[in-house]
Amino acid sequence: MGNNYIITIGREYGSGGCEIGKKLAEKLGIGFYDKNLIDAAAEKSGIHIDMLHKADEKPANPLTNPFLHPGYEAGTINDRLFWTQSEVIRELAEKESCVIIGRCADFVLREHENVLKIFIQAPLADRIARISEKYLIEIPSEAKKEVLRNDKLRRSYYQFYTDSKWGGRDHKDLVINSSVLGIDGTVDFIKDFVDRKFNT
Amino acid sequence: MGNNYIITIGREYGSGGCEIGKKLAEKLGIGFYDKNLIDAAAEKSGIHIDMLHKADEKPANPLTNPFLHPGYEAGTINDRLFWTQSEVIRELAEKESCVIIGRCADFVLREHENVLKIFIQAPLADRIARISEKYLIEIPSEAKKEVLRNDKLRRSYYQFYTDSKWGGRDHKDLVINSSVLGIDGTVDFIKDFVDRKFNT
Repeated sequence: MGNNYIITIGREYGSGGCEIGKKLAEKLGIGFYDKNLIDAAAEKSGIHIDMLHKADEKPANPLTNPFLHPGYEAGTINDRLFWTQSEVIRELAEKESCVIIGRCADFVLREHENVLKIFIQAPLADRIARISEKYLIEIPSEAKKEVLRNDKLRRSYYQFYTDSKWGGRDHKDLVINSSVLGIDGTVDFIKDFVDRKFNT
Repeated sequence: MGNNYIITIGREYGSGGCEIGKKLAEKLGIGFYDKNLIDAAAEKSGIHIDMLHKADEKPANPLTNPFLHPGYEAGTINDRLFWTQSEVIRELAEKESCVIIGRCADFVLREHENVLKIFIQAPLADRIARISEKYLIEIPSEAKKEVLRNDKLRRSYYQFYTDSKWGGRDHKDLVINSSVLGIDGTVDFIKDFVDRKFNT
């Protein structure tokens, strides 16, 4: 219980952050949670369905009531998802050691002791090349658009919920350019950081 | 010549960045340059005195001529120092492997191939404690003022000359919180990064 440790990984789109996190968790022999797994956990949990109901029962607010202000409908659903995901993240942190990708986990666990907060980045050209290859996008300008669009979504999401700059160095323990050592080299290097910190 | 590598280290005040850089250079057996050494090098070099003269001989500019615009006098001297320092940094990078602290070296060497760009940071409370101990400042609020004032100077200097955010993750290869592993632990960890990258 008290010896659990959590690695949170934020990442630029196309930096290989998710793959790095997955391989890191495998090497450390700990759990790995990305967006879908946390969403699934939220769906499964009775507490979180309750939380959704509670959110539903809040007094109508002109800023969040979809009937009064239709544009905010998505925002309201996002809020509820963010709250349930945050609750799931806090429960995970109590239960087990794991790697958590995205979902503002570094912010959610900001009061938690055994957390290493990592951010993976890479030069734009490398990220475009990576995304082009991964999704078979043949036109570089299209791949670039996709990279910038996804960065924008992540930035907007993170900044909305944390009031902090996405990908900023604030409160991060390690920010690393994955192009320097490559995916596997970066995994090994971060594993060293974890080993040194937690004597794993 | 072609196998030289340079480690640039930016750092928050009180993060131990300079000490880390010095110990890293010792362990790697390469040169170490901080502000004073680079200034001294600039003074010694004939080329740089020439450069100062050239700067002096530039056509009067209402934005930089101290007689037309007194407030810019300091700025003009700073500009000349920045140019000479930048020249010295580029010469160093051609001549030898070394660690360079501050002086916007990451920006100056942005086109240089064998450069690792590192930034050292630490939580504010840790930096205040460090500065209090180092300079025997007994009142914590005074130490805090000193830390924030020096950060402000570095931010202002960096942003003025590079048009980039100081301490931002942009273009950095590694940003690390020195409180996680401590000074010596951080030195060893960064040395690993250098070894892996340059097979030193």
